[in-house]
Amino acid sequence: MRVIRTVSEMVELGGGDLGFVPTMGALHEGHLSLMGEARQRNKCVCVSLFVNPLQFGANEDFDRYPRVETRDFELAERSGVDLIFAPTVPEMYPKESTTIHVPEVADLWDGLARPGHFVGVATVVAKLFNMVRPRDAYFGWKDLQQCLVVRRMVEDLRIQVHLRFMPTVREGDGLAVSSRNAYLSCEDRAKAPLLYRTLIELATLLARNHETVDDLLRDARARLAKHGFDVHYLELVSMVDLKPTNTNRGTALIVAATLGKTRLIDNIQLDGFSL
Amino acid sequence: MRVIRTVSEMVELGGGDLGFVPTMGALHEGHLSLMGEARQRNKCVCVSLFVNPLQFGANEDFDRYPRVETRDFELAERSGVDLIFAPTVPEMYPKESTTIHVPEVADLWDGLARPGHFVGVATVVAKLFNMVRPRDAYFGWKDLQQCLVVRRMVEDLRIQVHLRFMPTVREGDGLAVSSRNAYLSCEDRAKAPLLYRTLIELATLLARNHETVDDLLRDARARLAKHGFDVHYLELVSMVDLKPTNTNRGTALIVAATLGKTRLIDNIQLDGFSL
Repeated sequence: MRVIRTVSEMVELGGGDLGFVPTMGALHEGHLSLMGEARQRNKCVCVSLFVNPLQFGANEDFDRYPRVETRDFELAERSGVDLIFAPTVPEMYPKESTTIHVPEVADLWDGLARPGHFVGVATVVAKLFNMVRPRDAYFGWKDLQQCLVVRRMVEDLRIQVHLRFMPTVREGDGLAVSSRNAYLSCEDRAKAPLLYRTLIELATLLARNHETVDDLLRDARARLAKHGFDVHYLELVSMVDLKPTNTNRGTALIVAATLGKTRLIDNIQLDGFSL
Repeated sequence: MRVIRTVSEMVELGGGDLGFVPTMGALHEGHLSLMGEARQRNKCVCVSLFVNPLQFGANEDFDRYPRVETRDFELAERSGVDLIFAPTVPEMYPKESTTIHVPEVADLWDGLARPGHFVGVATVVAKLFNMVRPRDAYFGWKDLQQCLVVRRMVEDLRIQVHLRFMPTVREGDGLAVSSRNAYLSCEDRAKAPLLYRTLIELATLLARNHETVDDLLRDARARLAKHGFDVHYLELVSMVDLKPTNTNRGTALIVAATLGKTRLIDNIQLDGFSL
């Protein structure tokens, strides 16, 4: 496994039958499943580790975001990764950067809750794609809106890459695996699976009767709040444009809520609709 | 010469040792010089003809911009062009597009006079680059700020292309060749060369004494105004960032002025500084 620190070296080694997994490091089972898929599909697997300042708001967790490079290298090596691209911030952003603005799907939900977040995501992903020039790029459905923002950017700008979206990996108790789970206190970690349980229960109820979508969503929000979640949104949305809907074809339940100081997101798709 | 109308066909035929000349059609000697350079340097030469609505303001000349496709095809064929990419607007913009925002250099001069113009330029150029995937792309210095905006975008986003900027081609009387010269009335066409003559005279005066830059610029603006030009700007700027300067190393004189209803731009570099 080769560790690349500079953009120029990455550009030199990029291209060809390369499967790319962009990450912010603090690798977990979700990332490993993406690497495993890339290992199966592509000749060369490249993982980037880069905590991208451009996608963090001023009051967010850029500084305390977990950085465990040595452990990440070990996990990547064991997963059969060929190239690790781990640039510094000045290497990625030597000066104020050109930015990429995705319309519509980036303007909802986390785009509202985290102004500038998806500009940062789209910009760094485009830069990484231009450096790495992958044939396939792998993202987890856990970050559903991010998947749709990247897909819209790739479609609109006609970036030549195949996007591969993979199912959310979960802990035994259902909590979606995320680097930010490490922020949770012991007590909050015990409560956190209620998010996923709520989504599953809602899905079951909606399958029976979706005349009462709004009532069911309201009840579910109230229950989460009662258990200490600060619910930012819990909605039934179209998988195409993320706008609220009240059908259950091609839809997803999406949720964002803060527990303690930790913002958690999760989602489930309501039928066989695939990205 | 093959004429391509769809993005999917362009994507299929793009890549390799390809020299790319993006144009809005109405080909003139300036474009032909870019094609000639591409013909010398690249195995395959591709010219795009696309009047990009995204770079025109609401009150600008999108509708009356000259469209002379048959003539353009003939000129391109005679110049040894291999591929003409002439997509429709819905083919390039099937829906609201992701956009690209270049900082700093796009915020001055024509970026102020024509809000959104350089967002439109950067977006269409990035899209075209992703479709055509050229090794080299050719632009004329006549549109100096456009050259610097495209260069900044390519640097920031690490787009893998060599930019080749070529000297402005001029009519016998010095007027920079431009598709918009066709808008000029007979009388205004006779006046128009005063723009270039003013730049040359200023350059000569500045070479002798640049303590008086501001006075010289003020006098030159007044003279243009007296001859019927509505001067938007006439400035001595750094070639690096386009900010006003009062040295004459690595600088350019830039001018924009309206004659009748026609906005003309021109520039000259003050020494051997090359982009």
